[in-house]
Parts: sequence; C-alpha cells; structure tokens
Amino acid sequence: MSAQIFFSRRIRKTPFEDRVHENGAKGFTVYNQLPLAALYHSLEEDYWHLREHVQLWDVHCEQQVEVRGPDALRLVELCTPREIAGCAVGQCIYAPLCDEHGGIVNDPLILRLAEDRFWISIADSGVMLWMKGLAVGLGLDVEVFEPFVGPCALQGPKADMVLQQVVDIDVSSIKFFRFVELELAGTPVVIGRSGWSGQGGFEIYLQDPARGLDLWDLLFEAGRPHEIRAGCPNLIERIESGLLSYGNDMTLENNIFECGLDRFVKLGKRAEYLSRTALDDVAAKGADIDLVRVEFDGDKAPGLRSTWTIRSADQPVGFITSATWSPRFETNIGLASVSIEHAAIGQTLNILVGGETSPRSAIVVEQWPS
Amino acid sequence: MSAQIFFSRRIRKTPFEDRVHENGAKGFTVYNQLPLAALYHSLEEDYWHLREHVQLWDVHCEQQVEVRGPDALRLVELCTPREIAGCAVGQCIYAPLCDEHGGIVNDPLILRLAEDRFWISIADSGVMLWMKGLAVGLGLDVEVFEPFVGPCALQGPKADMVLQQVVDIDVSSIKFFRFVELELAGTPVVIGRSGWSGQGGFEIYLQDPARGLDLWDLLFEAGRPHEIRAGCPNLIERIESGLLSYGNDMTLENNIFECGLDRFVKLGKRAEYLSRTALDDVAAKGADIDLVRVEFDGDKAPGLRSTWTIRSADQPVGFITSATWSPRFETNIGLASVSIEHAAIGQTLNILVGGETSPRSAIVVEQWPS
Repeated sequence: MSAQIFFSRRIRKTPFEDRVHENGAKGFTVYNQLPLAALYHSLEEDYWHLREHVQLWDVHCEQQVEVRGPDALRLVELCTPREIAGCAVGQCIYAPLCDEHGGIVNDPLILRLAEDRFWISIADSGVMLWMKGLAVGLGLDVEVFEPFVGPCALQGPKADMVLQQVVDIDVSSIKFFRFVELELAGTPVVIGRSGWSGQGGFEIYLQDPARGLDLWDLLFEAGRPHEIRAGCPNLIERIESGLLSYGNDMTLENNIFECGLDRFVKLGKRAEYLSRTALDDVAAKGADIDLVRVEFDGDKAPGLRSTWTIRSADQPVGFITSATWSPRFETNIGLASVSIEHAAIGQTLNILVGGETSPRSAIVVEQWPS
Repeated sequence: MSAQIFFSRRIRKTPFEDRVHENGAKGFTVYNQLPLAALYHSLEEDYWHLREHVQLWDVHCEQQVEVRGPDALRLVELCTPREIAGCAVGQCIYAPLCDEHGGIVNDPLILRLAEDRFWISIADSGVMLWMKGLAVGLGLDVEVFEPFVGPCALQGPKADMVLQQVVDIDVSSIKFFRFVELELAGTPVVIGRSGWSGQGGFEIYLQDPARGLDLWDLLFEAGRPHEIRAGCPNLIERIESGLLSYGNDMTLENNIFECGLDRFVKLGKRAEYLSRTALDDVAAKGADIDLVRVEFDGDKAPGLRSTWTIRSADQPVGFITSATWSPRFETNIGLASVSIEHAAIGQTLNILVGGETSPRSAIVVEQWPS
C-alpha cells in the first residue's frame, strides 16, 4: 500500500510548504484540500523529539473560517452546544459543532477576534459551506468566508524559549487558550497558546501568505539553539495525549456524548442552537456508546486504514478508531468506540487488528501519564 | 517533492480500494476525504491505453449527496442556474452549483432517481453540508445526506463491449446522460452513460459497499478479452477533452461565466435560485476573464503545484490552472484563466512555467481534435 502522493492546484499550496519539503517530509496526508505532513524521520523519532525539544509545524490545513458581522455571534452559537457568549475577545474555545441531529460536523478551536468577528480553526470538514448555507437560509446579516490565513505551530517543551527570542512581550503572559496580535517578520500575526499536541506551545496565524517563508525562517533560526526541527502532528503523541481526530475518532454519525465530549455541552445554554432538542434527548436517555482509551497486546500495531472490530464474548461491541504502538509504554494504545456496557475502565475486550484472524486482548484504561 | 501518502480512517476506504492497490496504483490524491488513484504505469502509457482500450476506475470519491423529500426539487433548483425541472427521472444533468454571489460551489452531475429524489455526484467540495445548511436554514422538508454510494467507471472505446457481457439489456439503448437501474454481481446498481473522460463509457453506482470487490471482479473478468486495465482519470486525456476540474480550473472565487460554462446558465429560469441576481449582473456587464485552452512551447511541462503566471507585454493577464505534455500533439497544452481582452483564439501570450525565469510563448487555441 505504499504509493506517492500527487499534488495539483486543487490541493492548495501552503505559505510554508517549500520549507516542509526542504526539511525532508517523507509522508503527507490531505486535510481541508491542503497538504499536511505526517512524517519526517520516523513516527517514533519524531515523537521523542517533540516530547523533548521543539518543532515547527505547517498546520495551514487548519483552515480558518471567518464569521463576521452583526449576526456573527448568533450564527456561531447556533452551531455549537457550548456557550460562546462568555468567550472574551482575545480568547479561544474548543467547541464541537453539532448539526440538527446532534451529529458532530467538526470540532474546531474558535478564536474571538472582536465582538462580531470569529475565526473557526477547523478540523477536516466543510465548515465554511455549512455555516454559509445556514446563514443564507436564515437570512443572517453575516459574512462567512475562508481567509487564506492558517497557522504554523511551535510545539514542544522548549516552545516558550523559542518564541521569547522573537517577540518583545513576555510570552509567559500568554495564558492557555488566549491569543495576542502583534507583528512577526514584518507581518501581522495572531499568536495563541494552543496546538494539537499535549507538549505545550503556540499556534501562529499568519495574515499575509506571501510572508510565510520569512515567518518560518525567523522561528526556525530562533529555535536552532533549542534543537528545533520541522515537525508535524504525531500519531503517537496525540493518542497518548487523548487528542481526538475528527474523521478518525468521531464523524457526523456520532453525537457529542458518544465521543467522551460531554464536558463541552452546556445543556440549556441561553442562546439558540441547532442541536438542542437532539442533545437533550440523548442526555435524558444516556448515550449507547462511548469513546474510550484501550491498551492491547501483541506486536506493533500496523497503520489503521479503517476501523478494527472489537468483540466481547464473540459478539461485536465496537471498533478501534485510532491506534499506534507507544514506545514509551511499550504496548499498543488506541481509541475505541464501544457500547456503553463495555466501556468501563478495566473492561477486557478482544480486538481484530486489520488483516489478522486471531483477536488480541485489550483493556480499557483511564488515561496515560503525560 | 516526492513523498508517500498516509492513509487513516479519516480518508475513508472505498469498496474497490483493495483492487486498486493489487493492480499497482503508484500515485494517489485525496478527493472528498476519499482516495483517488492518479497513476498506474505512467501518465502517457495510461493515456494511450485509455484511448485505445478500456479501463476500470475506482471513482468512489465522486461522493453522492442524496437529496430526498417533498422539497428536494426546490432545494436543487435553488443551488444552480441550470433548469432542473425538465430533467426526467432516469436522466442526469451537468449542473454547476452557484452561491449567492454566483461563485461556483461545485460542478456535479445530478441524477434524478425519482421526482423527489436526486443524487448529486460531486467534485471535490463539501456540497452535503452546503445543501443541508441551506435546507435547515430555510426550514425545507427534505433530507440531505451522504449515502455510501459511489461509482466505479468503465471508460474507453471498448466500454460498451465489456458492459454488454454482464447485462441482459442492450447497452446501446442507454443514451448519453441517461441511466438504468438493474442488478450486477447480485447487488443493485445504477448504470449511467457518463464519466470523466472523452473516450466514452459508463459510471456504475454500487448500492451495497460490501459488494464492491465482486462488482469489480465481474467487470474486470468481462474486460479481459478487451485488454482491460485498472485505470484512473488521466490528466492528459481530460485536458485534451476539455474537462474542467473543480479546484484546479475553477473555484468558489469564480463565477460561472468566467469558466467558459455560459451554456450551463439558464438566465431567467422559472424556479428560484440563489445566484440569480449575481449572475444577471455579470451577464449584463460581461465577465472580465475567461477560461481558455492554450498550447505552449518548450520541454515537457512539469506538474503544476499552483498557478503559473501569464503575461502579455510584460503585464500579468492571467494564469495557467492545469497543464500537461500532450504526447499526441507533441506540445504542452493547458487551461488558462485570462483577462477577456487576451482570451481570443489566436492570441499570443507568455507563460512563466513553475520555477522557470524566462517565459515560454503560448497561443490560445479553439479546441483539440478528439
């Protein structure tokens, strides 16, 4: 199943992409019609480096959807069961978007740039057309569009030290899920303490795509004393950190309660939202399935192309949504969607790993140490 | 820029995919969160084979969006300036979808399965969420969803002979852009005379994903006497045939008149449609740019990663959107978006091919022989 990736104009080019290639990215995926590196050296080497040092990531594929105008807050509120009204300007909030059936449309970070202006920093699904369709249908006074703004990210324990070398402000003053606006490499950027790893760091949203390589070079040079490398979201690290991936661990077929995201629902929130009735119903009855962490035996798990069936007493009770070998715990780890009666911590299960005929034994665990 | 493609569950698996790998696809792209092979042997070898014989393509990535219910026709009409009312059950129609600004959202084939039931067979953009957003916003009585139905395609001059071996009906009775429903390999399919090549053939929509390999094998066996191969949409062939690619040759930034698609606008159509005012305005003023065919000099054109600037008298007047070397015409050919005053047939232009510093000379041509 080894094959080359083919790019064309349809897979849009990122402002940082030349450096990604120059730094030797070996593998790519496509995310929001944009390329996303998946591998530089090896999953394990990239993983250890991310945990110990600092990496610069091209995550322009976290395409922004800008929502702006008098009805901007109303539209954003409509799309999520989280309460957005309390999100201050300069703050960001992780807010799953849910459709009228409670299904998850996307699970973005939302940045509030002004009272009436938001960036929805999206996972891999067509949020712009969804929100624009709603706005047009409802006749809202709002613009919904994709500015060609996307972040690069500094991730890893040395991220603060690197960023401190290129900004005049005290970077420790940027609190978690807050952002500041300033200039870097002569171009306006938004810098937020956020990112798709559990190792800490920043996302830096470039507002002038023509200056992408300048921004990259500035950050990379600042990182040299700290052993910076080009990097990318790492499968091992994100599973260990319990970061869910839209499309892998949840889809439009799942409601939010089925994905262990209960804490991001504010039932009875004041503003109108599309999923109110559907989610109230699920909350009243309880979800039938849950997304849990599992460890499982045997050789290093292969790449997961589609879900792997989970059984209990020979009955199918769910499936693995993401999995990897953890070099730190020296076992296979994964995320699994299982029926609620098999979701308790300590539950033993059997997994049919892709292509294998005899099942491996698995156990539901609480979480992995950070 | 050579790198591997990484798959996960997020890039959904197609029902035919195992055969695509077994037949040695060397390159892939991602289209609607689904894999699409881009290359088997070489672009040129694949091209000649497609023109002379017959190929079986996995084009499941032409994800269907099903629109069903009392307001189905109203919703479909709303999305396009083509008139849909006259499309009969059993017929399909190429109908660009346009937003409220006249921008092209997608350029699908629409199949009318029943008076109140359509499949939108989409190019690469999030049509399901767009149409669903509109429907929810407008409170329409309609369901909009993605059935896991996708076509494989038989394309090439011998396609009729191959299909005739596996169906009881006379395949010549299936007229262009008409479809029939029947059973193949024990599963219901929809077979339409359509497809993304100029070589003729069929798209075969599988309604039970579990039977994909059976369907593939049935068609492949029937094709053996006709030198069938696994294949894929071919860059050379589709440019020679003047088939536009959404995301490459047109985007949401383009209105339909800018893409040479004027004939698919029915100004003043009876039903309500979102883009009426915007397109009426463009039609009254005339479009500023047009999409044209060009031939250009020099060595074989490299792969196009992003647009190449076109100049006339040292002024930028447009850009190349798709390009390839044509082994048949022994010249480079491409599609170009140029300002209207430089769009006439016979116009000479200069192209800055990616990475090169001296421009190549180009000419706008009418069309290439089929």
